[in-house]
Amino acid sequence: MTSPDPQRLAQQLRFITELDRLKQVLRQTRLMDASRRENSAEHSWHLAVMATILLEYAPAGTDLTRVLEMVVFHDVVEIEAGDTFAFDVQANHDKSAREQAAATSIFGLLPDDLEVRLRGLWDEFESAATNEARFANALDRLQPLLHNYHTQGGTWRAHQVSRDRVRERMRPIEYGAPTLWPYVLRLIDDAQQQGFLVS
Amino acid sequence: MTSPDPQRLAQQLRFITELDRLKQVLRQTRLMDASRRENSAEHSWHLAVMATILLEYAPAGTDLTRVLEMVVFHDVVEIEAGDTFAFDVQANHDKSAREQAAATSIFGLLPDDLEVRLRGLWDEFESAATNEARFANALDRLQPLLHNYHTQGGTWRAHQVSRDRVRERMRPIEYGAPTLWPYVLRLIDDAQQQGFLVS
Repeated sequence: MTSPDPQRLAQQLRFITELDRLKQVLRQTRLMDASRRENSAEHSWHLAVMATILLEYAPAGTDLTRVLEMVVFHDVVEIEAGDTFAFDVQANHDKSAREQAAATSIFGLLPDDLEVRLRGLWDEFESAATNEARFANALDRLQPLLHNYHTQGGTWRAHQVSRDRVRERMRPIEYGAPTLWPYVLRLIDDAQQQGFLVS
Repeated sequence: MTSPDPQRLAQQLRFITELDRLKQVLRQTRLMDASRRENSAEHSWHLAVMATILLEYAPAGTDLTRVLEMVVFHDVVEIEAGDTFAFDVQANHDKSAREQAAATSIFGLLPDDLEVRLRGLWDEFESAATNEARFANALDRLQPLLHNYHTQGGTWRAHQVSRDRVRERMRPIEYGAPTLWPYVLRLIDDAQQQGFLVS
């Protein structure tokens, strides 16, 4: 049994401690009983739940481990860059630059081998170029859709979001969880009919 | 492309929606800046972070996917059974019976194949009989240790917990992440020297 390298272990624990701050980053989305806003740590946990339960709707051959790792770490940059509301056009202009800088700083806390691996997973999620990343992105859109639906329109109503914008926003589900897409379209139509979305 | 079975999908989404309630189950542990109590959803997310970062300290051959799935679902029974404080002797008497009943009810929301798989993972975590379950249990002890250390004793001080009780409570780390055990013992000694623990 080899002892841990103290410097390496210190870097790992520093990263783990730093990530505690994600529990304080609030998203626009509210919990399903609308009692309060959701934070990015519990949102990430919910995506890991969904990945396990909905894996059969991912493209064939999608590897669950990589999906789980991706959803667990996909939002950690928000510790420095903050959560950017999906329908805030202004804030989305420099979102990518802010998040790239944050990724360099946060993953930079890790020992080199882990930094390379985790930054690679984060880049993979961002570029959505693999089945795993596409499925993870699909879940990242589906989760707030379910929340908004269950809170009578939630942030959609608060920000007067239209059905077409939501449909466009949900588009990654068509590629990342294709068999769920018809269900998602029906849910959006239903949300509009119930007055949760403006036309 | 086959369409989803509507009844199966409805069961899956019902489970996913029900699990949102874990975000409202408060633990005794406070966030690392002591600002508020942590909930069990964000705690579970933090364990998934730790599993990925600390895997090298698990017993050789430990499978990360199963560890990740276990930590994501290990606390979902608390939706019905509540969180039981580790140092509350009284509440721990019937903890197991309450949690078994909750597991039957909550995993029972799922389609049969998923119910069997997830209940199996939960039972595996509880009985700590595999490397994966032992590592997951070790993380479940280490995480609040780090929180209590970083909050000057946190719940230990509030409940006058002794060093010996904490050492005993941390024992699963000796088996689940053996190379970390000497570090953990040093951290507990240090906590006592700083007055975070009574002797």
